[in-house]
Amino acid sequence: MFFASDNAAPCPPAIMDALMRANAGFAMSYGADAATTALRDQIRTLFDAPEAEVQLVTTGTAANALALALYTPPYGSILCHRHAHIEEDECGAPEFFTAGAKLHLIDGAHGKITPDALTTALAGAGGAVHSVQPSALSLTNVTEAGTVYTVAEITELASIAKARGLGVHLDGARFANALAATNASPADMTWRAGVDVLSLGGTKNGLLAAEAVVLFDPSKAWELALRRKRAGHLTSKMRYVSAQMAAWLDGGLWLDMATHANAMAARLATGLAMIEGATLAHPVQANIAFARLPASAHARAKAAGAVYYDMGDGLCRLVCSWCTTADDVDALLAAFNG
Amino acid sequence: MFFASDNAAPCPPAIMDALMRANAGFAMSYGADAATTALRDQIRTLFDAPEAEVQLVTTGTAANALALALYTPPYGSILCHRHAHIEEDECGAPEFFTAGAKLHLIDGAHGKITPDALTTALAGAGGAVHSVQPSALSLTNVTEAGTVYTVAEITELASIAKARGLGVHLDGARFANALAATNASPADMTWRAGVDVLSLGGTKNGLLAAEAVVLFDPSKAWELALRRKRAGHLTSKMRYVSAQMAAWLDGGLWLDMATHANAMAARLATGLAMIEGATLAHPVQANIAFARLPASAHARAKAAGAVYYDMGDGLCRLVCSWCTTADDVDALLAAFNG
Amino acid sequence: MFFASDNAAPCPPAIMDALMRANAGFAMSYGADAATTALRDQIRTLFDAPEAEVQLVTTGTAANALALALYTPPYGSILCHRHAHIEEDECGAPEFFTAGAKLHLIDGAHGKITPDALTTALAGAGGAVHSVQPSALSLTNVTEAGTVYTVAEITELASIAKARGLGVHLDGARFANALAATNASPADMTWRAGVDVLSLGGTKNGLLAAEAVVLFDPSKAWELALRRKRAGHLTSKMRYVSAQMAAWLDGGLWLDMATHANAMAARLATGLAMIEGATLAHPVQANIAFARLPASAHARAKAAGAVYYDMGDGLCRLVCSWCTTADDVDALLAAFNG
Amino acid sequence: MFFASDNAAPCPPAIMDALMRANAGFAMSYGADAATTALRDQIRTLFDAPEAEVQLVTTGTAANALALALYTPPYGSILCHRHAHIEEDECGAPEFFTAGAKLHLIDGAHGKITPDALTTALAGAGGAVHSVQPSALSLTNVTEAGTVYTVAEITELASIAKARGLGVHLDGARFANALAATNASPADMTWRAGVDVLSLGGTKNGLLAAEAVVLFDPSKAWELALRRKRAGHLTSKMRYVSAQMAAWLDGGLWLDMATHANAMAARLATGLAMIEGATLAHPVQANIAFARLPASAHARAKAAGAVYYDMGDGLCRLVCSWCTTADDVDALLAAFNG
Repeated sequence: MFFASDNAAPCPPAIMDALMRANAGFAMSYGADAATTALRDQIRTLFDAPEAEVQLVTTGTAANALALALYTPPYGSILCHRHAHIEEDECGAPEFFTAGAKLHLIDGAHGKITPDALTTALAGAGGAVHSVQPSALSLTNVTEAGTVYTVAEITELASIAKARGLGVHLDGARFANALAATNASPADMTWRAGVDVLSLGGTKNGLLAAEAVVLFDPSKAWELALRRKRAGHLTSKMRYVSAQMAAWLDGGLWLDMATHANAMAARLATGLAMIEGATLAHPVQANIAFARLPASAHARAKAAGAVYYDMGDGLCRLVCSWCTTADDVDALLAAFNG
Repeated sequence: MFFASDNAAPCPPAIMDALMRANAGFAMSYGADAATTALRDQIRTLFDAPEAEVQLVTTGTAANALALALYTPPYGSILCHRHAHIEEDECGAPEFFTAGAKLHLIDGAHGKITPDALTTALAGAGGAVHSVQPSALSLTNVTEAGTVYTVAEITELASIAKARGLGVHLDGARFANALAATNASPADMTWRAGVDVLSLGGTKNGLLAAEAVVLFDPSKAWELALRRKRAGHLTSKMRYVSAQMAAWLDGGLWLDMATHANAMAARLATGLAMIEGATLAHPVQANIAFARLPASAHARAKAAGAVYYDMGDGLCRLVCSWCTTADDVDALLAAFNG
Repeated sequence: MFFASDNAAPCPPAIMDALMRANAGFAMSYGADAATTALRDQIRTLFDAPEAEVQLVTTGTAANALALALYTPPYGSILCHRHAHIEEDECGAPEFFTAGAKLHLIDGAHGKITPDALTTALAGAGGAVHSVQPSALSLTNVTEAGTVYTVAEITELASIAKARGLGVHLDGARFANALAATNASPADMTWRAGVDVLSLGGTKNGLLAAEAVVLFDPSKAWELALRRKRAGHLTSKMRYVSAQMAAWLDGGLWLDMATHANAMAARLATGLAMIEGATLAHPVQANIAFARLPASAHARAKAAGAVYYDMGDGLCRLVCSWCTTADDVDALLAAFNG
Repeated sequence: MFFASDNAAPCPPAIMDALMRANAGFAMSYGADAATTALRDQIRTLFDAPEAEVQLVTTGTAANALALALYTPPYGSILCHRHAHIEEDECGAPEFFTAGAKLHLIDGAHGKITPDALTTALAGAGGAVHSVQPSALSLTNVTEAGTVYTVAEITELASIAKARGLGVHLDGARFANALAATNASPADMTWRAGVDVLSLGGTKNGLLAAEAVVLFDPSKAWELALRRKRAGHLTSKMRYVSAQMAAWLDGGLWLDMATHANAMAARLATGLAMIEGATLAHPVQANIAFARLPASAHARAKAAGAVYYDMGDGLCRLVCSWCTTADDVDALLAAFNG
């Protein structure tokens, strides 16, 4: 009954096997190996983006901050949701990598920015030399509230941003879960919707540590490479990172795992809805549920060994991963129900 | 016959086995797992430094830049050898992490700084508000030239630095090789010699990607943690990093591998010395040889499939790793000899 | 009828005379001149702070950003009012000078932070490594809304901040107006109230370009000096900056001018209150009035040559300076009245 | 007998008069005043560069660092002479404003970079992701050694830099002296020679505090404006800065003063050459002489009240300004001669 985070789960055998296979003989370092080249092509094909630049890192924070630095000068601002991971959970990484840009926080229900809110925010931003200039829009899908933007929503938001000349970033720490939730293609949810750069997250969905910056404007590729190196994020033995991600994408494993995690969260949401005194704080659209429960329910669950984040006032966050089982979910629900 | 770099070698079975064992069940993320706690204690014991702070990252550049940022304000300077890795091979990472400090380059034969050179450099540095202030000394052991500082040499240099109030950093990307070369203990080569913070490198000596910042002044531990997170270097599934390093240190595997790599380089050096027209550019004291060879020797080696870095004018760098064999060395020498 | 800003006013004769007198013979540069030494002592005496460090700059943005950088590491945050000058009008200078810290915005009526709002903001800030750590509180007096904190209010806010270990900065771009409004002494409104560092603004109150960073903790003096130089804010011919400020402080000229400007704003406020359809958006407590007026009133004033900032929806900002006359005020009121 | 620095001199009456005239009535702040507009046009005309952007600051360090930041990304390097002001006397300002770029130091006799040295430096710079990329060349004219680049020399150096895609910056803290020394036109010494951006210094040649960034590529004008504001270098009462510079340029006053200062240094050099035991360390080509003199000569000069910088080993720097007189020079020479 471990619902604390999807990054506390182990990795599936296919990933570990791939790591073992990668551990054969010498391979040129810093990404000049065959496995990395192959993976980059694999991702380009998957995104129907033959010109896209793909660069690997090992944390989502690095992927986000590097991606944003390509579109945000020091005197710029990044528009994002008030509760975006880049604002609340990265200890100022975007400010560090951009050399001091500002995050412009936008409120919105259930972790999502609405077109109206974005339009309003942009209307009051920049123009005069006295303030920072809006430079990038950063969306997160799956959102921090566990909700999902549709392709149409991303397209509309990106279009508003682009009309002001902003770059559009998608924090896809749980991109596979967002695809699974919407049945969208990788291309439809990214460059066809106006996304310029994607943080493609693997770690929260079954990898040891592997994220890709997928950059749809290859003219910034060299800058990205230099920024990655300068930030200490150019892994020397890249083959081990590439191997993880290749195995994850192979045969759609990433989507299978995400689909499963989403299904477990749906099962959880269904069960929570039937618990007396329980309410869902946000629609459960991917692999995360936020629920308010009576103190007694929490006490029973904790006593039964459930692990999850308490957020105060009875609110909790419950995250399902690729290895959460229906039994885990049912056991948690049973404990909550008492 | 792969002598290009030790970071092109695969990982030994013990490390891969440890990774597999680490892949069991859930584990709290961001270093709050049992394996990471145990590793931190293991390193403290190994260094006879019960109060030391240990934080893991996955690249040497990150370890170096984070360590230096603890001792160098933006208006400071880092004294280092002209050919230090932090100057030549990190794309300005120290400048990035320190928010714009300067590297103060010191010349010296065979990759080493002499006490006189350090004294002279410090004599002309800082004091007035018009220039940056000397803040840290960064030494590298094994040096970029493949030579090794003795404990006595480090002690003398650190003492000069400390007399001016500088922090002392040791870039130990090949720390195990330096220990193996000198028979020094980890404590003797670091805090007992005046080193404040060590970049303890595992990746070049058999790990997939694991480096530790070992900080002998624990009062800076919280700052280090925040800087690591902010730089995107707080790995979420830390257990996989910790598992690598624990297995590497267990039973002295790290030193065994380093001793082997050093022995292979010694064998290589001995052979090179007997090749007509060949000269060693630097004393071979650890696992790296720099040699000047006739063009014909290079041509034969390349034709025989040898891989190594050509540095121009007949000079090449030959690096031995934990998995370089005597046969590899002999084959290379045979090819050079023609 | 110029009410656009106090920094559009000319300088009084006493200041220009002082400049002329300063222009005699050679004087050591970079602040090593007698006039600068004398001014520093003058300010220490005025603030009853014999140990305080005083360093001059020529813009308020520089004073603020330098002061804040002394108390805010890159991984820190500065708590300030949502409409603080440092947030809205400095193009990210605090982020630049701190190397990427975050501004943590606090809402509050009439430009002021309440103790409750500060307490709430701090309760949710920092602690874990995933977010920036609260580092400084920045108050502004006179506020951007033209209101004034009393000494008691500053004391209470500073006390809350200090209980969490924060540094306390006072943006005193209109410090003289705040003193004049409250009859407080410089010491009472600063270090005795818990302020660690003050931006003492002269430019908005009659100087050409002169601001002082008054630092009540002299242990940071050297850091301030280096940061000032590094930012290009160490004026070489300092005597001309010092001469301005000395003449301004001499005989209480600064307070006389501020008192006059405040009185003019009070006269304006009184008149505005009698205009049908006019409302004051904030209490007028110093030299600035914010008023909502009918479109017809604005049209008449503009036609009569009045210059001031339109903020949309009938709201305008009217700033009085040392050289605003009662006739100016009355003429503006007459125009508004029609 | 004040030869310490040209920035220790007072300002000529024409400048002070201009300041007084500028002090009339209200003027829009932040450069939106008529005097600033007129000055910008005046400079464009003077440089025969109708499209050039002109932005004022008050220190040379600010002008240099802002100019360089336009051409140097954080992962870039600035090639400059080892003894350039930006390296030795700005406390890391270029690193601050560029967010951590590196200065790539080039040796050269008499403060000058030779084409060969530049070519060699560039040959070994950049290319791979492991190192910073050469981004800008910064020349200084008059150099720190008091020598002068001819237009032909600048043209050749700029051409080498541009062939590698670098931006070219000219630190013209003593630009007027360089023009006076070479009889070149402002346009010939800057954009026609390949200079992209000039720091046009006024402070060392008779102004209180006024420098202009003259940017020959206006596409970077908005970025410059934002960076200037963000650095706290947008002076609010700009009219006083503009007035100084306008009066300085009017009727060629700036060149007259520079010509005089150069002539005084030439007189000094002639005299020094006749002193037994004295040698000039560098050719005296503008307003600065570096001389080695016997200890006895120094002792006599100091006893006679001469003020200048001692650089150790008998070497001294002697700077002439617009107000140095022939009598001053002769008195100093007499004292040296004993």
